[in-house]
Amino acid sequence: MSTILNEVLAANAGYTADFGDKGKLPMPPGRRFAILTCMDARLDPAKYAGLAEGDAHVIRNAGGRASDDAIRSLVISYKLLGTREWFVVHHTDCGMETFTDDVMRKLLRSSLKTASVDASGWHDAGGGGGSPEGEHISWLTIPNQEQSVLEDVQRIRTHPLVPRDIPIYGYIYDVKTGKLIEVPAATQAGKAA
Amino acid sequence: MSTILNEVLAANAGYTADFGDKGKLPMPPGRRFAILTCMDARLDPAKYAGLAEGDAHVIRNAGGRASDDAIRSLVISYKLLGTREWFVVHHTDCGMETFTDDVMRKLLRSSLKTASVDASGWHDAGGGGGSPEGEHISWLTIPNQEQSVLEDVQRIRTHPLVPRDIPIYGYIYDVKTGKLIEVPAATQAGKAA
Repeated sequence: MSTILNEVLAANAGYTADFGDKGKLPMPPGRRFAILTCMDARLDPAKYAGLAEGDAHVIRNAGGRASDDAIRSLVISYKLLGTREWFVVHHTDCGMETFTDDVMRKLLRSSLKTASVDASGWHDAGGGGGSPEGEHISWLTIPNQEQSVLEDVQRIRTHPLVPRDIPIYGYIYDVKTGKLIEVPAATQAGKAA
Repeated sequence: MSTILNEVLAANAGYTADFGDKGKLPMPPGRRFAILTCMDARLDPAKYAGLAEGDAHVIRNAGGRASDDAIRSLVISYKLLGTREWFVVHHTDCGMETFTDDVMRKLLRSSLKTASVDASGWHDAGGGGGSPEGEHISWLTIPNQEQSVLEDVQRIRTHPLVPRDIPIYGYIYDVKTGKLIEVPAATQAGKAA
């Protein structure tokens, strides 16, 4: 068993030993809000936003982007589980600022090409030289944080399945200080009707 | 300003006041692993798996499903930020077990139909009666947890952009006890080559 797996299961045993009344929490978020934020390891939304178990939905992906899948999750969060306010939180020093779709495509193309001839550990996507997967994926990179928060709030705000009366707040988390910094244009764009 | 927004910003101020050395953490996850899990409010992956800030990527959506967007995030996690082990963690009493695509479509259809004539708060998707959005979305519902964990591990394992040498572990989080319960068939399917 890997060291990581052992460590995770040991930590989990500690958590369950002091689980208290948490087993009785209901399914719908008690504080009726949701946060969409980045998967970045430095971000702990429960800590930076003060969440206890049972409080709020947390949706995370690379960048904290308003992808179709994030919107699927938000619509379920609202429609079936009753959230009524949403946050979009990107952050400083995000990995998504460090590359472009072109860079990612080149990286993957080179990995995929070598997959059939060496031990790179990658599947061979196309019989060794065909059009590899990943050429047409949008990686949702971030050239500018304030702009990406604004765009994502706008995308959610104008999505046909999103109700007009949910306010959407746009913030950037500063990894140097832990502080949530508002993006006023995004919060403005996300105002409830 | 909403009560929730005030509470979140107050909690954030408390967090930043005692931020310590966390501002110096590097971008790549220190423990080189990633967890894909559900957005459910009762789940706190940092607590149930023992993560400190900087340790691991956390990807969350409705159900903890291996959607294209989750796989986008995992590929970035590996390729650019160096994770080498992944967990897929679904959970008992998941909201995704409580409905089907059909139910969701009917719910949305009825909301969208009324959007143009009452104050339901929904956008009108199609001029009041056209084909509404959401008819063709797969909501990634879960008829059976063990099966969904297995399917998602298999989907990641066989994805052409996922390297063969990353082990993928399949678990179910029990919301009554906090315990991580292995899905052996999933972990087996997720074995590294």
